[in-house]
Amino acid sequence: MVQLIHYTLCPLSRTARLLLAEYGYDAALAEEKPWEWRPEFLSVNPGGNLPVLLFENTALCGITPITEYLLESGPATPAVTSVELMPEELIARAEIRRLSDWFHDKFHDEVWSYMSYERLENPFVHRLPPNPEAIRVAMANLRNHLFYLSRLLEERYWVGGEYISVADLTAAAHISCLDYLGDMPWEKVPIVKNWYARVKSRPSFRQLLHDTIPSIVPPAHYTDLDF
Amino acid sequence: MVQLIHYTLCPLSRTARLLLAEYGYDAALAEEKPWEWRPEFLSVNPGGNLPVLLFENTALCGITPITEYLLESGPATPAVTSVELMPEELIARAEIRRLSDWFHDKFHDEVWSYMSYERLENPFVHRLPPNPEAIRVAMANLRNHLFYLSRLLEERYWVGGEYISVADLTAAAHISCLDYLGDMPWEKVPIVKNWYARVKSRPSFRQLLHDTIPSIVPPAHYTDLDF
Repeated sequence: MVQLIHYTLCPLSRTARLLLAEYGYDAALAEEKPWEWRPEFLSVNPGGNLPVLLFENTALCGITPITEYLLESGPATPAVTSVELMPEELIARAEIRRLSDWFHDKFHDEVWSYMSYERLENPFVHRLPPNPEAIRVAMANLRNHLFYLSRLLEERYWVGGEYISVADLTAAAHISCLDYLGDMPWEKVPIVKNWYARVKSRPSFRQLLHDTIPSIVPPAHYTDLDF
Repeated sequence: MVQLIHYTLCPLSRTARLLLAEYGYDAALAEEKPWEWRPEFLSVNPGGNLPVLLFENTALCGITPITEYLLESGPATPAVTSVELMPEELIARAEIRRLSDWFHDKFHDEVWSYMSYERLENPFVHRLPPNPEAIRVAMANLRNHLFYLSRLLEERYWVGGEYISVADLTAAAHISCLDYLGDMPWEKVPIVKNWYARVKSRPSFRQLLHDTIPSIVPPAHYTDLDF
């Protein structure tokens, strides 16, 4: 029995869910709102960050430890045929990790941390006046990140190179959260849109597209595989 | 020929330098001030983060890709006898990665990002009025982190368990930057002090203790192995 402590619109949690699905794990989900800092949650993960993967007596805390664990242990059972999500060659592995960190650290800090505060945490928890400047900064940063992603995808079929990898799942997990909120300027980045449609059509992605959170309805194209 | 692009008081760069020394690499150092965002540096690492490890035609960007690369490739030459810095067992590996991320992400954001701005970047670059509240917050956060580290070290001889690991080098690299600035409340955390003295006495640490930056002299105990 495997359980994932996650939040529905947490891009790091979504990365773990994609990986678990790709590797044939049927993980039970327990939702945790990361801004609540519940003592029961902190007793499991003193760092307070998501996601946390729970095995019988063990908690794996944080997306990088979980990702590397799943890559090292492989599919849930030998019967699961999974795609290879990390190349063998050491320099190529470093490039996949660079891009995964890019989204988990840089993209998260420069885009998602603003958006999630303004659109999820503040309106439902603190109810302070909205900060349009924060959203403006996040959207300007998003355009720069999508420009970089476009440049990569002009040279590569997948984000990290010739083959799909954990970097594609990571980038798509982050982008899916913005897409849920209707904040992806798809018409400006056609090459990113084509790549995202390819990742989105994977069976592992289906669970994310059917998730909803209270009070926010995603745009119609969010669940559409041919958007 | 291996080159490391680093900044002297960057804790992530220091982690890479410790690892390189443990594995017998004689890396040339090139200093980069991360707040300058030099176009020449961004053309090597578009993310702008430190450290960057340069091989002949390849740049490995960021501390996690560099760390995992070095752990996977091992010592520089077979003649180097190095200690094992990552356990074999998968759950134990996840714990080492959790703790390394704790310092690189959480400790860095909650302590070092404030201190480095107030003590290194602002006084020499922006020259805005100092912000004592930022330093007060960083020091309060530091006490919480050291309390957690003390709790770990009451149960474990090394940060990640029974054996020294990359988590010890990581934690000590971060703490060494604060120690250089004279900001470590050593008298309040004797168990952390004992552990740090053990890490500090490793030959790989010597290079860090002899580093200096202009205009800031470290306290006398900084280089003292029996402080």
